[in-house]
Amino acid sequence: MKVAIIGLGLIGGSMALALREKQLASEIVGVDANDIHQQKALELGLVDKVMDIDSAISFADLIILSVPVDIANKLLPKLLLSLNNQVVMDVGSTKNAVCELASNTVNGKRFVATHPMWGTEFSGPAAAVKGAFTNKAVVICNKENSDADALEFVEKIYHNLGMHIIYMDAAAHDLHAAYISHISHITSFALANTVLEKEKEDEAIFALASGGFESTVRLAKSNAQMWVPIFMQNKENVLDVLNEHISQLRKFKSCLEKENFEYLAELIENANTINRILK
Amino acid sequence: MKVAIIGLGLIGGSMALALREKQLASEIVGVDANDIHQQKALELGLVDKVMDIDSAISFADLIILSVPVDIANKLLPKLLLSLNNQVVMDVGSTKNAVCELASNTVNGKRFVATHPMWGTEFSGPAAAVKGAFTNKAVVICNKENSDADALEFVEKIYHNLGMHIIYMDAAAHDLHAAYISHISHITSFALANTVLEKEKEDEAIFALASGGFESTVRLAKSNAQMWVPIFMQNKENVLDVLNEHISQLRKFKSCLEKENFEYLAELIENANTINRILK
Repeated sequence: MKVAIIGLGLIGGSMALALREKQLASEIVGVDANDIHQQKALELGLVDKVMDIDSAISFADLIILSVPVDIANKLLPKLLLSLNNQVVMDVGSTKNAVCELASNTVNGKRFVATHPMWGTEFSGPAAAVKGAFTNKAVVICNKENSDADALEFVEKIYHNLGMHIIYMDAAAHDLHAAYISHISHITSFALANTVLEKEKEDEAIFALASGGFESTVRLAKSNAQMWVPIFMQNKENVLDVLNEHISQLRKFKSCLEKENFEYLAELIENANTINRILK
Repeated sequence: MKVAIIGLGLIGGSMALALREKQLASEIVGVDANDIHQQKALELGLVDKVMDIDSAISFADLIILSVPVDIANKLLPKLLLSLNNQVVMDVGSTKNAVCELASNTVNGKRFVATHPMWGTEFSGPAAAVKGAFTNKAVVICNKENSDADALEFVEKIYHNLGMHIIYMDAAAHDLHAAYISHISHITSFALANTVLEKEKEDEAIFALASGGFESTVRLAKSNAQMWVPIFMQNKENVLDVLNEHISQLRKFKSCLEKENFEYLAELIENANTINRILK
């Protein structure tokens, strides 16, 4: 199988590593608008060649779209129009807009909408991680809109990568992603800004930062170019969750203000039950 | 050196392991109100013996107070009164109240107020971690209120444990701890409750939880018995930070509502600079 990866970042790069490790690709070509990323991806052996997008599309059996979700939606219609029965899959964090776009475009049935549930706060090809997807979940959305052979082709790849496939309606995916991923990023960004606001006044905070802080703000290092389009595309869901989160924070605030420490303990004990969700 | 550890939880237990590993204690006795914790600490070899508090005090050269901060403040005056020139150190997450208490009590100069900047979301003696404190920071507060020999004794122990000592005024410690630790816990608890609120409606969220979510809500597993007293004692600072955090979240909300994606990118890029604080 010849693979074209459009977008040689964290996910595209890690996908290249995974396909190579499992010997699923005979050749991998890369497309990236960023010269430095192209160069780095070649250096790291993520891809065999760098090509322009048109050459890559006609070369490949499988095209993986791993660019930020706004750029994915810009590229997809043109990309679908150039297809000659190849399969296209995306790996973006929002699915509703891209699925709608595909279903309204010629060759849209060659597209399979996927979201591998893995990522880190780092970006670019140098951030690619070996074995990243093994034993992780991947969501495939609106599978009824894909050709049976295209769907099967993508399912096989994820199966061979050791991933557990979950099928979901694109709108449901975006709602759940808002709760399970997008809000975590917003709270991390906001927490980082809270601390940075304070830190202007005092450097002592540097010395004290320890493990708990680090894990809570880890996601705050995440890239704006990736996340702004996600928040844009999933605006309504993210706003719903953000409102709920602010109201949950207000409960803690009210407990403190009123010194209602029994209710505070209840809130914490309820939060402890999150254990059920974390694997 | 004979050591009494009052409170055989995560920190007390890890301290026992560290003192043994560095061969700093000839004998370690433990005190704990919880029979199961007593038994577990003996089983795990954290302590050589379990004693009642009075026997432990008269037995030991060093008394480590590693109970939740409300219980520490209850035990401290009585404990100080029973001293016969031994040294007492606490390891609590708030320092202002305990320092004030010590400075108003007989033998208060035998007390050294410390806060090792390490912890996990787990509790109890079984959660104790070997080598937990190595290369971590420890804050010593209001050192001028401790006898020179008591201070030096405690400094030596932390030095031998491989810790980096930071000296700080107790009030400043509590302010910084609110920013660097206490708010992280509140945001994690609130985020867990946000997701749990939603999850009542839909189980799909379980399947999707991935690494980013896990790290952001990790602290939500933390124990209410430990954290409610911390929030109580540090109420004013925690409220200040919580208000700042809510106002930072509102900026994200407003960006989404107004579709001001340029400012959203700015907020994220500002958050990215948290990299400077994380080691």
